Amino acid sequence: MIDMVSIIEKKKAGQALADEEIRGFVAGVTDGSIPDYQTSALLMAICFQGMDRRETFCLTDAMLHSGQTMDLHEIKGIKVDKHSTGGVGDKTTLIVAPIAAACGVPIAKMSGRGLGFTGGTIDKLESIPGFRVQLTPEEFLETVETAGMSVVGQTHDVAPADKKLYALRDVTGTVNNISLIASSIMSKKLASGSDAIVLDVKCGQGSFNKTQKAAEDLGRLMVDIGTDAGKKVVAVVTDMDQPLGDAVGNSLEVIEAIDTLKGKGPRDMTELALTLSGYMIYCGQKASSPEEGRRKAEEALTSGKALDVFRRFVTMQGGNAACVDDIGIFKQPLYKAEAKASGSGYVAGIKADSIGLASQHLGAGRKTKEDAIDLSAGILLLKKVGDPVEAGEPVAVLFSDDEEKLAAGLAEAGSAYTFCAEKPETPVLIKEIIE
Amino acid sequence: MIDMVSIIEKKKAGQALADEEIRGFVAGVTDGSIPDYQTSALLMAICFQGMDRRETFCLTDAMLHSGQTMDLHEIKGIKVDKHSTGGVGDKTTLIVAPIAAACGVPIAKMSGRGLGFTGGTIDKLESIPGFRVQLTPEEFLETVETAGMSVVGQTHDVAPADKKLYALRDVTGTVNNISLIASSIMSKKLASGSDAIVLDVKCGQGSFNKTQKAAEDLGRLMVDIGTDAGKKVVAVVTDMDQPLGDAVGNSLEVIEAIDTLKGKGPRDMTELALTLSGYMIYCGQKASSPEEGRRKAEEALTSGKALDVFRRFVTMQGGNAACVDDIGIFKQPLYKAEAKASGSGYVAGIKADSIGLASQHLGAGRKTKEDAIDLSAGILLLKKVGDPVEAGEPVAVLFSDDEEKLAAGLAEAGSAYTFCAEKPETPVLIKEIIE
Repeated sequence: MIDMVSIIEKKKAGQALADEEIRGFVAGVTDGSIPDYQTSALLMAICFQGMDRRETFCLTDAMLHSGQTMDLHEIKGIKVDKHSTGGVGDKTTLIVAPIAAACGVPIAKMSGRGLGFTGGTIDKLESIPGFRVQLTPEEFLETVETAGMSVVGQTHDVAPADKKLYALRDVTGTVNNISLIASSIMSKKLASGSDAIVLDVKCGQGSFNKTQKAAEDLGRLMVDIGTDAGKKVVAVVTDMDQPLGDAVGNSLEVIEAIDTLKGKGPRDMTELALTLSGYMIYCGQKASSPEEGRRKAEEALTSGKALDVFRRFVTMQGGNAACVDDIGIFKQPLYKAEAKASGSGYVAGIKADSIGLASQHLGAGRKTKEDAIDLSAGILLLKKVGDPVEAGEPVAVLFSDDEEKLAAGLAEAGSAYTFCAEKPETPVLIKEIIE
Repeated sequence: MIDMVSIIEKKKAGQALADEEIRGFVAGVTDGSIPDYQTSALLMAICFQGMDRRETFCLTDAMLHSGQTMDLHEIKGIKVDKHSTGGVGDKTTLIVAPIAAACGVPIAKMSGRGLGFTGGTIDKLESIPGFRVQLTPEEFLETVETAGMSVVGQTHDVAPADKKLYALRDVTGTVNNISLIASSIMSKKLASGSDAIVLDVKCGQGSFNKTQKAAEDLGRLMVDIGTDAGKKVVAVVTDMDQPLGDAVGNSLEVIEAIDTLKGKGPRDMTELALTLSGYMIYCGQKASSPEEGRRKAEEALTSGKALDVFRRFVTMQGGNAACVDDIGIFKQPLYKAEAKASGSGYVAGIKADSIGLASQHLGAGRKTKEDAIDLSAGILLLKKVGDPVEAGEPVAVLFSDDEEKLAAGLAEAGSAYTFCAEKPETPVLIKEIIE
């Protein structure tokens, strides 16, 4: 049995914890023998004193072994996972997974649900009629083997220590520490059993990484953890000042993903998808460089092969793949309204967090884990940063099943846009690659 | 209802908390509505970021009003309290209270029990056959009026928020913060209803204040809190490198206190008692200066008036005052043993914490609050720092009712003494006066 008070005192004094202390702590969190008040005191001390690379790797490794780990060895080839730190309008997985799979990289992925102003891939997929996010292990493996990819909900047994720690961090002001964030993400990713991981680390207003420096540091630490765990990890630092693409909301984002797979997606969404899937193809050793990976990704789009993978994947998980050609398959929202420009000139900025919050108000997101969501609610952005605009012109269309929610969303979305007289510089989408 | 997460985040970011936030926090701790894990996270953030004087006063004031406060207005005169931050062999209250009372200063005091290696006045008093530490409010007031002084156990209703916070600090590595320590002490002292307080702030090996600077800072903060609360407070910083006086253990300390009241006490014990009671007499406005207070204190000893007060006080609280003249009244320990000097020359140091621990091993102290104690167990120091000594000569006598405990105490006490060839400088007992 570890002595939690001395561990807390040690970290409080700025000393590095020994591996056995960290493993004892994680074991005690997992089996419930350490009271929450001691855990939260240690978490706060970590926020002030930090953890070094060895400590952070050890914490990650202990959390990943606190529950079940996925065994993907039955799937041939180099399995590549992808993770985003979360953003508004981020439907990237729905695009990059079919692209990479079409290029021969097996994708066996677990995803989460949305919370707060960020969405979750699992919710988005559920907007496809019939789609099942819970598969048996046999179904999961068969879908990857046959369709080339599968995406399922996280099981309860993946990194339970992380689940408990995250819940506690959320209510004790201890979320924002780089080692705690990196170990939380990487413990789940490493438990998922893929051989390589491409990380999309967001920065800007719609991310918890407000600065590029913070995102780069986090990306570097996660790449280091992956290296220490013997996995190939690449971190791509990308912009989340304005929402990604034009669609925010579950079925709206699936439709935009399908459009992008057809080669008709928004410019920023397409660019990000090609960069990330290029790295996924490279990490999966189906290309000798990220540049070659990107070329293969482009071919997968133009040839329609990525869209074919998407169709098979949806079908094998019970979804109605007719949605690819007929968006009438999706449930339609009852009400819609336009947000109008309050100024003329150019769109100077679109606060991603405000658009995320507006989408939540419309019913597309959850305030708490227990909230039900409206899968057809959401926002279509008609104008992005740099677009010319005149006062009174519509900048966004909002959808909801509830008129009150529509009004609340409209008020929030209106405040997201800022305008300027001079054409602003085009935002840089891909800021840094860390490997 | 306060938002604890934002309060934690605010303190974590180094900002001062508003009075209503601190009061809301203390109210939530008191009524149990704030979970311990949030409280411990805030306590840890306070350990790192500190609290300013206003915050510390507000925390003190909120804790003191979290439960009952004593109403001493029926007692005429300026009531003076005395508090020690805790030490080994610290029987000072048993001496200074009768001295101050003999000089006309009413003493209506609540005291605590011992824990760890520090003793408690209430345990010591209970070693007097028949002595009652729980009185009704009427009995308490009558004893003060008639005998001039009364000492009773703390009631459960005094500063319950402090009681809860202290219990949590003890198990979360958040004990050692000056604002948390000062507010804990002062909330209880201010709730006790006296008009002035003389604080004995220990420093050295046998105190949590390891350095004189730490003790001075704590003394200054407590004087400031008292000032902000409209009370006269004086802090006397005193040495706790070696134990105070020669006796450690409950009945042994009462006997030494009686000896000191007879003018036959150890030099250091007598010196400290005269200094503190001089300030108590001055704060009680029965002397125009601390120096005059000290002269009156000396008179109270030589005239026997202080001893008379002690007799009356013991009698009125049910104790057998014959103990003053016959130490055979006290329960006698079954076994005794001598600790021998392991070196020759002079005593260089006596680790107060080791002597305290040895005394605990003998049965005189508690490891946990629930432990029973042996009131006759303890240690008589035959040699103090600076005394000449020869190897093999007895340096201390240990007493216990249990031979195994005696052996454990002997091993610990033997390690407390260090020796040197040159006569060391005499330790300075009174280091600083802060008012």
